[in-house]
Amino acid sequence: MRIAILIFDRLTALDAVGPYEVLSRLPEAELEFVAAEAGPKRTDTGALALSADRSLADTEAPDVLLIPGGAGNRELLDDEVVLDWVRQAHETSAWTTSVCTGSLVLGAAGVLEGLQATTHWAFLERLREFGAEPVSERVVFDGKVVTAAGVSAGIDMGLSLAARIAGEDVAKAIQLGIEYDPQPPFDAGSPRTAPAELTEMLRRMGAEAERA
Amino acid sequence: MRIAILIFDRLTALDAVGPYEVLSRLPEAELEFVAAEAGPKRTDTGALALSADRSLADTEAPDVLLIPGGAGNRELLDDEVVLDWVRQAHETSAWTTSVCTGSLVLGAAGVLEGLQATTHWAFLERLREFGAEPVSERVVFDGKVVTAAGVSAGIDMGLSLAARIAGEDVAKAIQLGIEYDPQPPFDAGSPRTAPAELTEMLRRMGAEAERA
Repeated sequence: MRIAILIFDRLTALDAVGPYEVLSRLPEAELEFVAAEAGPKRTDTGALALSADRSLADTEAPDVLLIPGGAGNRELLDDEVVLDWVRQAHETSAWTTSVCTGSLVLGAAGVLEGLQATTHWAFLERLREFGAEPVSERVVFDGKVVTAAGVSAGIDMGLSLAARIAGEDVAKAIQLGIEYDPQPPFDAGSPRTAPAELTEMLRRMGAEAERA
Repeated sequence: MRIAILIFDRLTALDAVGPYEVLSRLPEAELEFVAAEAGPKRTDTGALALSADRSLADTEAPDVLLIPGGAGNRELLDDEVVLDWVRQAHETSAWTTSVCTGSLVLGAAGVLEGLQATTHWAFLERLREFGAEPVSERVVFDGKVVTAAGVSAGIDMGLSLAARIAGEDVAKAIQLGIEYDPQPPFDAGSPRTAPAELTEMLRRMGAEAERA
């Protein structure tokens, strides 16, 4: 089971590292971070670099393809080298997946046409641009395409995917290993539960950042 | 607010990246990954490297110190350069924190003597070696020392700490920004809820790995 996580400059680290931490614990998983060019990629805060050990040109036919989010992936939406690689990988993949705005890249590659999909709550409507039907759920499976909501949702997606790949017992063992027994101190993790003015503020800030 | 996250070879990536994703979003936070020697550090799976931008020698008096877990930190338990740095940083820190087995390093530095603390469930009793009182909770505050349970607990700790540093509204905004509305597909994230035989299996595997 070869799992390729596509990274790029200005990615959101947890989008990639959440599912990595889960999927890398699958028995016989070979997990690799890949990028248009191999080397360190700076995260969106600038405070961290994650290394891509392999270039896309050297990454053929992974069994699982995962695309994280982060402001930097908007540059990939018209990057034909990356989009071609995504299309090719999707042709032979067992699972094609994304976290957060990673789904926009899947959309731009044409992968989401006619499918149900999700993304970060602030970007949900943008999925329509790619012919997808936005679904406000934490993890959405549509055939072999699996999309997760914002940032931290990649952990939940990783566990759901681990169960499909290796069975529920393995997924539960991984969950116990990473002690994923979440106890958020507040109930503000979704527009469903957060104060409305907070949701509006973040939506406005996000829209401004997109225009910048 | 200068936040230093200590990394090392064979760390568990999510231990560091969970709280990083939260704390880096604090207004006016300056977050840095630091290590005995600057440069890339391979995670415990081998599949990823995180970069330390600064050496410990160049990292003086951070306001927040965070030590993640991972098999590689057992080598730090008698590394006097690292332990001296932890002791010095703790003298002037506003918060001294750990995730997972990072608490063993705090313990070895003498920081946990007489305090309540937590760690990954499989290591809880080891905290007694350092004069700490183990507490089976997700996040434990004792004065300015904050310890989190295994791996994924660093996200919950990050949010609790963000609220103490910048107030609950900021912490809630961060939670909404990373869409931390966890929905684990299984209820197996703690020995409290996981099948007993699974807990025993992981405990045995962990003990074997420690002896290896």
